[in-house]
Amino acid sequence: MYKINDNYLKLPGSYLFSTIGKKVSEYKAANPDKSIISLGIGDVTLPLAPVVVDTLHSAVDEMADAATFKGYAPDLGYEFLRQAIADNDYKARGVDIAIDEIFVSDGAKSDSGNIGDIFSEDNKIAVCDPVYPVYVDTNAMSGRTGEYITSEQKWSNVIYMPCTADTGFAPEIPEETPDIIYLCFPNNPTGSTINKEELQKWVDYALKVGAVIIYDAAYEAYISEDDVPHSIYECEGAKACAIEIRSFSKNAGFTGTRLGFTVIPKELKSGDVSLNSLWARRHGTKFNGAPYIIQKAGAAIYTEEGKKQTKDMVAYYMENARLIREELEKAGYVVSGGINAPYIWLKTPENQTSWEFFDNLLENANVVGTPGSGFGPSGEGYFRLTAFGSHENTREALERIKRL
Amino acid sequence: MYKINDNYLKLPGSYLFSTIGKKVSEYKAANPDKSIISLGIGDVTLPLAPVVVDTLHSAVDEMADAATFKGYAPDLGYEFLRQAIADNDYKARGVDIAIDEIFVSDGAKSDSGNIGDIFSEDNKIAVCDPVYPVYVDTNAMSGRTGEYITSEQKWSNVIYMPCTADTGFAPEIPEETPDIIYLCFPNNPTGSTINKEELQKWVDYALKVGAVIIYDAAYEAYISEDDVPHSIYECEGAKACAIEIRSFSKNAGFTGTRLGFTVIPKELKSGDVSLNSLWARRHGTKFNGAPYIIQKAGAAIYTEEGKKQTKDMVAYYMENARLIREELEKAGYVVSGGINAPYIWLKTPENQTSWEFFDNLLENANVVGTPGSGFGPSGEGYFRLTAFGSHENTREALERIKRL
Repeated sequence: MYKINDNYLKLPGSYLFSTIGKKVSEYKAANPDKSIISLGIGDVTLPLAPVVVDTLHSAVDEMADAATFKGYAPDLGYEFLRQAIADNDYKARGVDIAIDEIFVSDGAKSDSGNIGDIFSEDNKIAVCDPVYPVYVDTNAMSGRTGEYITSEQKWSNVIYMPCTADTGFAPEIPEETPDIIYLCFPNNPTGSTINKEELQKWVDYALKVGAVIIYDAAYEAYISEDDVPHSIYECEGAKACAIEIRSFSKNAGFTGTRLGFTVIPKELKSGDVSLNSLWARRHGTKFNGAPYIIQKAGAAIYTEEGKKQTKDMVAYYMENARLIREELEKAGYVVSGGINAPYIWLKTPENQTSWEFFDNLLENANVVGTPGSGFGPSGEGYFRLTAFGSHENTREALERIKRL
Repeated sequence: MYKINDNYLKLPGSYLFSTIGKKVSEYKAANPDKSIISLGIGDVTLPLAPVVVDTLHSAVDEMADAATFKGYAPDLGYEFLRQAIADNDYKARGVDIAIDEIFVSDGAKSDSGNIGDIFSEDNKIAVCDPVYPVYVDTNAMSGRTGEYITSEQKWSNVIYMPCTADTGFAPEIPEETPDIIYLCFPNNPTGSTINKEELQKWVDYALKVGAVIIYDAAYEAYISEDDVPHSIYECEGAKACAIEIRSFSKNAGFTGTRLGFTVIPKELKSGDVSLNSLWARRHGTKFNGAPYIIQKAGAAIYTEEGKKQTKDMVAYYMENARLIREELEKAGYVVSGGINAPYIWLKTPENQTSWEFFDNLLENANVVGTPGSGFGPSGEGYFRLTAFGSHENTREALERIKRL
């Protein structure tokens, strides 16, 4: 008699954004005349950059001709893409990453969920609170998180690192020693960042206690301040303790196009075993590559044209971020984020809970955001708005919020 | 101190096709003047069908316009694709599958590797021997297979179902009772099939012993005989015991384009828990959908034009299969497969081992095939050739093999 993975049954509710999607659909069905503006899920709205579109067309034409048709991709991804990543995301910032330390994937969500495969069940994770739910949920699925304590909205075997107003919405080194530390900077959901000196402290700490850092840098393109590191490998010693996950979703609008990558330096070893070789084995056995046409499109963003066009996209969204920050502040809201990240983190007014404010906003302003408590208990009383709308929608949403 | 997943260290060698790729690269580097023909890895060579190419172009244009741009896809995949699958792959064969029983993915390799996530570590698997290595390797990674016994080339805790000349290269119901049974028809690597009555016996058996069948139907488009089922759900009771995995790689040449799907009927339950809900949770948490443009391209193969064009592609490859079978038989080889599958399974001549014949073929005929023993111990003394080359290359390869 087969047995299911009981860990799944411990998961509370459904995946956060599935729950929000359902609530919005129900509201729309009941109120078909209302026009909803979503500043909720971190999904982009600008079309793909012209150079990406052109490259996709030409790559599709290659697939239409037997002489240039591409079947299965190389295990780690096409070299043209990995070389562009190594040169532009790392070498240009003084970081030396070899192309066989880069693993091209279908996105950062898959990678940050799947990376747990190469670790034993017996590891204690530390996560920010609030946090991107994928880190915790996927560890819960693997049986690493203990039992869910409903009253506390916490797992019994997870180290939570509160990111509150007191900590500048960034985590502090925990009292209890973790084995695996999930860090995300610029942070989702709070939009906070830390400078290089502060990140170096995390690297030093991980090296000291023998922890591995899983560093999610999906939002690095939004960094505007000079002293904020774009890669954890800018810190000394990070290659021996950190895995970095990157995405094309937010810098190039690939949320529906799907491309990402993970860097695992060969120096990162558990005893004699290089984690690079473990991930290479997983990548080659449980995955068959991102589509050729999409790898080509990914490489196009590293051309001069591509860099300019994607920079313009980021600037477009960051103009929204500025507007949201400033207008909400004017209206008396307490806000943070939005300077090195496309997320604005606001305190709900009048002590509303995060979900109360969600319902209030959906019903009375027809604006969708994300309840802070959906990201963890320390997110209670907070709310996330994203800068990924159009200027027009963002302005309209702000008007509606101000009328609340 | 973090701990790695030690199960990875038990895996022998690297993934089969990575090993072959390395051997071929080394030979090419040492013999740059030789022209190698690959009938090895099951990779297609014909360009994408015209309707797929046109659809990709138009979908790319949609992504270039804010009004039609698509961000994150719905969790299970776009409804237009799931509806086309339900109508054409199932309803047209008298099988009723609801669209929320279909999960669109980036391919059958990912799905057949990841499906293990929803099962407990404590399950005993049964696999064909020889078998597609992904089933066994991914279960080994999850700690389900015991220890690898090098002398036997077997795992201590796996039920092997020999597929030999005596069994018509198809499995027989094992003596020991498994929890999870992997079946693949038309079979990779042997090219064998079973008829509906025989498959019904597996379904009845699984229902009787409480096993779940993971049915890999990636090659169903190659079925030419009437009594061979295209879906396990053609068998009575299969919805309560089987998961079916499908691919667009072989019917539509999507090996480098990446699309597949998994069907989990809601009737498939462990106690009160529907496996559909577990997989929905995994799919929503560890995956972010196949690219929109590729889901559109997938739907295009279900149009009248698409059906005709992909049928022509399959016919092209099956003409190769016929040629390989007939020419090798004429040359005195003992062959099977190639009638309902693009794979020809041949006995190595003069008692050569599978890897001896691989080296012999690579060095003396400059033809790459796949050693049967790479798929499991009962594959020793056998060799797989694929029909996915061009007619010209296939003919040339056969001439070279005959001159051996």
